Amino acid sequence: MSMTILIAPSGFKESLTADAATTCIAAGILRAMPNASILKAPMVDGGEGFTAALVDLTGGTLHRLTVTGPVGEPVDSFFGFMGGQEIRTAVIEMAAAAGLRLVPRDRRNPCLTTSVGVGELIGAALDAGAERILLGCGDSGINDGGAGMAEALGVRFLDDRGQPLPRGGAALRRLAAIDLSGIDPRLTRVRIDAAVNWHNMLLGPKGVARVFGPQKGATPDQVEELAAAMEVYAAAIGRATGMKVGTAPGAGASGGLGAAVLGLLSGHLHPRYDIVMRYLDLDRLINRADLVITAEGSLDGQTPYGKVPAEVARRAKLRGLPVIALAGTIGKGVRLNFEHGIDAFASILKRPCSLDEAIENAEKLLTRAAEDAVRMVSVGIGLARMRRKDMRIAAHRSSYCDVAGASGSSRSTA
Amino acid sequence: MSMTILIAPSGFKESLTADAATTCIAAGILRAMPNASILKAPMVDGGEGFTAALVDLTGGTLHRLTVTGPVGEPVDSFFGFMGGQEIRTAVIEMAAAAGLRLVPRDRRNPCLTTSVGVGELIGAALDAGAERILLGCGDSGINDGGAGMAEALGVRFLDDRGQPLPRGGAALRRLAAIDLSGIDPRLTRVRIDAAVNWHNMLLGPKGVARVFGPQKGATPDQVEELAAAMEVYAAAIGRATGMKVGTAPGAGASGGLGAAVLGLLSGHLHPRYDIVMRYLDLDRLINRADLVITAEGSLDGQTPYGKVPAEVARRAKLRGLPVIALAGTIGKGVRLNFEHGIDAFASILKRPCSLDEAIENAEKLLTRAAEDAVRMVSVGIGLARMRRKDMRIAAHRSSYCDVAGASGSSRSTA
Repeated sequence: MSMTILIAPSGFKESLTADAATTCIAAGILRAMPNASILKAPMVDGGEGFTAALVDLTGGTLHRLTVTGPVGEPVDSFFGFMGGQEIRTAVIEMAAAAGLRLVPRDRRNPCLTTSVGVGELIGAALDAGAERILLGCGDSGINDGGAGMAEALGVRFLDDRGQPLPRGGAALRRLAAIDLSGIDPRLTRVRIDAAVNWHNMLLGPKGVARVFGPQKGATPDQVEELAAAMEVYAAAIGRATGMKVGTAPGAGASGGLGAAVLGLLSGHLHPRYDIVMRYLDLDRLINRADLVITAEGSLDGQTPYGKVPAEVARRAKLRGLPVIALAGTIGKGVRLNFEHGIDAFASILKRPCSLDEAIENAEKLLTRAAEDAVRMVSVGIGLARMRRKDMRIAAHRSSYCDVAGASGSSRSTA
Repeated sequence: MSMTILIAPSGFKESLTADAATTCIAAGILRAMPNASILKAPMVDGGEGFTAALVDLTGGTLHRLTVTGPVGEPVDSFFGFMGGQEIRTAVIEMAAAAGLRLVPRDRRNPCLTTSVGVGELIGAALDAGAERILLGCGDSGINDGGAGMAEALGVRFLDDRGQPLPRGGAALRRLAAIDLSGIDPRLTRVRIDAAVNWHNMLLGPKGVARVFGPQKGATPDQVEELAAAMEVYAAAIGRATGMKVGTAPGAGASGGLGAAVLGLLSGHLHPRYDIVMRYLDLDRLINRADLVITAEGSLDGQTPYGKVPAEVARRAKLRGLPVIALAGTIGKGVRLNFEHGIDAFASILKRPCSLDEAIENAEKLLTRAAEDAVRMVSVGIGLARMRRKDMRIAAHRSSYCDVAGASGSSRSTA
C-alpha cells in the first residue's frame, strides 16, 4: 500500500523557486520511498514562477508574446490559461513584463521604469478570451503605481494642462486628473484577482517607495520624489473613483501596481498565497494525502505568522495530517511551530558551511534533506509495523496458551 | 506501549565524550517522546571517559588516588571497579595517569614524559583485589613504550653498564637489557585486557613516534630520536621475552604502552570498542531495544570501515533493529551506510555555521538533533497507525456491506 505525499513548499529566497523546491523534494522522496505517490502544490507567491506553476499544475497553456518592457524596449513575455476551470481563467505575473530582472542593472531607476507591459499582457489575455484574470504581484522593477498598466488599458493620466504625462513613477508628481472614459470595456465583465503581499502599503513611512525603492535602484532623493508622487497619485485616484488606495492592504504591492488594480481596474487584492491555495485546491490535495511536506528558506519563531509552512500546516491539521517542514536555516523559536501543526522539521544542511555555499547547493541539499527525512519517517513506519507483528505474535501465543490451559483444565475436570 | 531506545554513540572529537553524547541524545529523545524507555551504551574508546563509562553503566565504584604524573609530578587520578561481574574487574584508563591533558603545554616533550603513573594505578588496583584489569588506551601524552608503567610494576630497564635508565622514551635508545625478575608476581594471576586502536603500530613509517609524536609536542628531530628508541626497545623486549611487538596490531597504542602490555605484562590487546561492547553487553541491550540511535562526529563513506556507528548498526541488524545515526558532519559517500545497517541519518546542524561554532554548541545541537529525529520517526509511527485505523474502518465498512448484501439477497429469495 503506497503512501501519498503532498509537497507544498514556498520558494527559497535567492536560490530556489517554489516549483524547483517541489521538484527537488519529489526526487528526494522517491529515492527513499520509490512507490510513494506524489502530489505537488508549489506555494508560489505572486512573483516569478506564478504563471508557470498555475499553468503546469492545472494542465493549462502558456502563451508567448512581446510587450513593452520596464525601460520602454520590447521584451519577450508570456501569460497563461489555467486548465480545468469552468471560467476561462488567464494567469499573468507582472514580473514577466515589468520585473526587476528585466531592468538592465545600469538602467535601474524606478522614477522612469513602467508597468505598461503588464497592461499589454492583460489586453492580450482579454483578446484571447479571458473571462477572469489572476494577476501575480512580486519581483517588480517599477514604482509607477501601476499607472503604465492602466494606461495600456485605456486610462489617461493628465497634467494640469490636460496633457498626458510621460511614463514612470516620478512623472505622477505632476498628475492633475485621471480620465477613465477610454478604459477597455471588457474590464467591466472580467474580474481581476491579484495575489499581493498583504503588508505592502502605497503611502507612508512603510510605503512602497521607501521600502522597495532602494532595491530597485532609487537614490535617497529619488525615493522621496517617488513617495511624493505616490501621494499625488493616490489623491487623484480618490478624486476619480472615490477609492482610498493610500493605506489599503496590498495596494503598495509591485511598485504600487496593487493600487491601480484596486482603484482603476476594479480588481480585487488577495494575500499572495490565497490564490495559489484556492486554485491549486490545496484542501482537495490535502484530502488525498497521507503526509504533507512543506519547506521554506527559514523556519523559526516568525513562521507561524503567515509564512507558507504554517499556512500549509494549518490546513493540513484541519484534516489531521502529519506535516514535515524542511528549511535551509532553522532559527530561534522554531519549536513554536509544533503548536501550529508542524510535527517535525529538518535543516537541509549536512556539514558546517557558509550561507553562500548553502544557497549555491540548495537543489542538491533540499533533495537529500527530503530523502533523509523520509528515511527517518520510514524508520517510524517500520517500528510501528514491527511492534504490531510482535503484538500479533504475543496475541497468538496468549491464545495458544489459553487453548492449552483450557485443554489442561478439561483434563483435570475429566 | 512505550518504545525502548538504545543510545550507543561514540564521542564527538574535540567536543563531546561518548558519555556526554549519550546524555544529550537521551535528553533529546525524552523531549520528543516523554514515555520512551532509554538504554545507554556510550561507545567509549580506551581514552578519557573509559573508566567512568564502564563504572557508571555497571553500577561499579570509582577509587581516587594520587600517582606520578607524566612530567614526574603528582597528579590526582582514579581507577574503578565494575559492578555485576563474577570476577573482580578493575577499569583503568591510561589517560588518567599519563594523558596529554596532564602534560602542561610548556612541558610537552614526549622524549621525557612517562607512563609510570599507569603502573601505579595497576598496582593500586591489584592492592584493592583486582582479579582482572581492563586498561583503556588513548589520549596519551607519552611515548615511552609503556616502560614507565612496567617499571612501576617491578620491571627494570638497564643500560649497557647495568644501570637503570632514566624515565622517558628518549632514554630507551640506550636500553641494553630488560630485567623481568622483579615483576609483581600478582600479574601472573591477573589478566590484563587493553582496549587499543588496532591500527597503531610501534615501529616503522606509521609507527607511534612518527604518527603521534608531533601532536604530543615532539620536534622533527625528537620524532626521529623516539622512533630510533622504540626500535631499540622492541628489540630488547624480543630478547627478553621472545615477543615481536614491533608490528603487532595495537602495540603502538598510547605512546607504545600497548607494546609493554603485550610484551612485558603478558596482557592482551583488543580493538578498542570490543571491550566496551563486551562489558556493556551491547547485544543484550540490543535485544531489549526497539530502536537504536548511534552517533559520531562525522558520518561518511569511511564509516562502514570500523567506525562506531557501523559496528553498532551491524550488531543491531543481526536482530533486525532499525538504526538511526546522528553526526556533526555528513560527508561524501554517506549513502554507503544504508548497505551497512544504518536506516536513516541526520546532521546536528540547523543553519549555516563554521566548524568551530558547531563544536562549541555540540551539546545543544546534538540534543536537538535527537529530538528532531525522534519527532520525524514519530511522524512515521503516527502514519502507520493512521493507515491501520483507515484499514480497520475500511474492513468494518466492507463487512457492513456484506451483511447488508446478505440480508438483501435473503429478502430477494424470500
